[in-house]
Amino acid sequence: MATKKTAQTSTKKTAKKTSRTKSTVAGDADSLTRKRDQETITKIKGMGAHVVSRSLALEEPFVDIPLRTVSNTRFNKKKRILQMGDNTQRRDLFNLGQARKFMQTILLADGCKDLIEADKTLSLRGMYYKSLHTIAGTKERTFDDQAESDPILEDLEVSLGALREELHVFAKEAGKMVGNVTIIDNGDEIDCRHMGSGGYAIPSIVEPRVIQFGKCEAKFVLHVEKGTVWSRFNEDKFWKTHNCILTEGGGQPPRGVRRLLRRLHDELGLPVYCLLDCDPWGHYIYSVIKQGSINLAFESRRMAVPDAKFIGLRADDYQRCDLSDDVKIDLNDRDITRAKQIANYPWFKDKKPWQQEIKKMLSNGFKMEVESLITKDISYVTEIYTPQRIREADFLD
Amino acid sequence: MATKKTAQTSTKKTAKKTSRTKSTVAGDADSLTRKRDQETITKIKGMGAHVVSRSLALEEPFVDIPLRTVSNTRFNKKKRILQMGDNTQRRDLFNLGQARKFMQTILLADGCKDLIEADKTLSLRGMYYKSLHTIAGTKERTFDDQAESDPILEDLEVSLGALREELHVFAKEAGKMVGNVTIIDNGDEIDCRHMGSGGYAIPSIVEPRVIQFGKCEAKFVLHVEKGTVWSRFNEDKFWKTHNCILTEGGGQPPRGVRRLLRRLHDELGLPVYCLLDCDPWGHYIYSVIKQGSINLAFESRRMAVPDAKFIGLRADDYQRCDLSDDVKIDLNDRDITRAKQIANYPWFKDKKPWQQEIKKMLSNGFKMEVESLITKDISYVTEIYTPQRIREADFLD
Repeated sequence: MATKKTAQTSTKKTAKKTSRTKSTVAGDADSLTRKRDQETITKIKGMGAHVVSRSLALEEPFVDIPLRTVSNTRFNKKKRILQMGDNTQRRDLFNLGQARKFMQTILLADGCKDLIEADKTLSLRGMYYKSLHTIAGTKERTFDDQAESDPILEDLEVSLGALREELHVFAKEAGKMVGNVTIIDNGDEIDCRHMGSGGYAIPSIVEPRVIQFGKCEAKFVLHVEKGTVWSRFNEDKFWKTHNCILTEGGGQPPRGVRRLLRRLHDELGLPVYCLLDCDPWGHYIYSVIKQGSINLAFESRRMAVPDAKFIGLRADDYQRCDLSDDVKIDLNDRDITRAKQIANYPWFKDKKPWQQEIKKMLSNGFKMEVESLITKDISYVTEIYTPQRIREADFLD
Repeated sequence: MATKKTAQTSTKKTAKKTSRTKSTVAGDADSLTRKRDQETITKIKGMGAHVVSRSLALEEPFVDIPLRTVSNTRFNKKKRILQMGDNTQRRDLFNLGQARKFMQTILLADGCKDLIEADKTLSLRGMYYKSLHTIAGTKERTFDDQAESDPILEDLEVSLGALREELHVFAKEAGKMVGNVTIIDNGDEIDCRHMGSGGYAIPSIVEPRVIQFGKCEAKFVLHVEKGTVWSRFNEDKFWKTHNCILTEGGGQPPRGVRRLLRRLHDELGLPVYCLLDCDPWGHYIYSVIKQGSINLAFESRRMAVPDAKFIGLRADDYQRCDLSDDVKIDLNDRDITRAKQIANYPWFKDKKPWQQEIKKMLSNGFKMEVESLITKDISYVTEIYTPQRIREADFLD
């Protein structure tokens, strides 16, 4: 480390230049941040102003909340993402069944405004505690538990048209990244080419106000399902030999990972290849990355990666890779029901290769995990399977 | 990035020196690795040789497996860690009830030898697949499922006296780190002072062959329970203002995190302070970090941190911090049973402060989460609560 210090001292001029460049980047991000935060605050104030003006006019205050239901979700064929429809539900203050939720909505909106103004972030649980109190003169608590505040925060997202991240609230975090890219995270330059065996932990909030991209040589992103598979690829330095970025999402990728994949695709123009298990869960993860989740369709426009490709595993790998019977895991009834549901998703329905894939899995009667390729060789997946798929552009779309 | 390159070019001399220093460190680690790996292989070969020599002498081959049971676990008062007793169970080849397990033990031992020789690592699931096959001429599979191979790998650890990590097998990974320390991970220098909002993902295997420590200014380690709390401390740059290292273990910390805490304590002489919830689960996590887990007592000698301190939350914080009733979460029957069990742990039994702590929690009738301090202020925990505890050295031991 001492030598490193000397290096810094002996190149003062350059160092100064570097820091100037860095601070310009940081400055741009800062002003972008302030602008977005200001926009979000304006939206929150707008909601409040509407309530106030109705009240002053002696009219009943309300907020309109877009409906987050399956029936109000549609697949936009042109954009190839799930979108929320136009149906809303009115939340009145002077309605016994709605007054509590109305109060909670305004309370959490106010909490988000506090957060943004303090330039801090909180978890969903943190927001619950922040807005939790007993209403003066009563025994009534603002929230019974977090299960009551979480959906209201989602309501706020959709009614304000602001992502949860823009409200400074974060959800579960999971996932790691390494590869030929530099990330600027809160002003820190993180060289993902030198992250050892551990990797860079992908944060929950990866909006441009926090994360910017530096130099990137990578030609694509390889996203794998689990940390165990990710470790195999990282240990074999796959991202180095194949010049890519390697990510994982701890099963179903949380919002941070999905949003990062989308930004890597949009802003750096990188194709996103997904290596997932050959089972309904793997197919569903792919569907969520590609088209968005039914549950949170309103976020698709900034989370989904409609161009994402599915590398595998695929049902015919059993024959194609000459796998042994030992890799078979019987499909249970739930798997079969799930597989049929997924085959009926509007975005899979018209795709022959996906219909064939799911049909083949069902006729096989078994599922397979990426890890099962270890029965061929420890590094079969990194040295043979994945390179071949990529070389031959042999994907499901 | 271009400017950074210039900086590197213009200090060739220094850079050379740095890289020489680095490669020496890496070289030392390498030779250490080779030595340890060689030792592990020798142990595995010893097990095999014993089986072979018995067979050639026409005697029944067996392996003796130390018992991993509560009754074979004792608390070493002097070392203040949980230890495994001397009771073993013999696993015979010519015993119908034991032959299958005998075969699995030898099979997995052989698999670990392969891994070490190939200088690769695998997850528990990976090891299951690696050793999975149908025995020729039969329909008998070597393992029915992973639930059969996991305990055998633990058997191997204890009978060989080698940590799972030394067998090149890794378990679940979780946990993140930032702070005033540099880590060398697989030769990559990771500056934990510049890891942004994401942090360095703590890998499963943190043995010296993978992880070495570079420069460290930090004076202590603050370990928190969850990622959400960790994010609050990281966002408020607590580790910078208090010159420490900040870790989290995703709930009960996995082996990688525990082993890293132990190494930070042993090798860098850093006190380890734990900030956990005021509930039986938080107390249990502290107990595992400090004394080891009952389940895997054989690993305590290299995982436990008997000097670890418990910062809080504490049952009297409700009064002391003037918290509102809203933070109370009622203890349920399971909590109460668990709390009484923990109070009876040999290492808590003789400690008056812990007896008082658990008694107070039980008489309160409620538990509290670290996040509940948000009801005071978003940053109360980082700006008031924790600094005060540390300043006054007000810990439970």
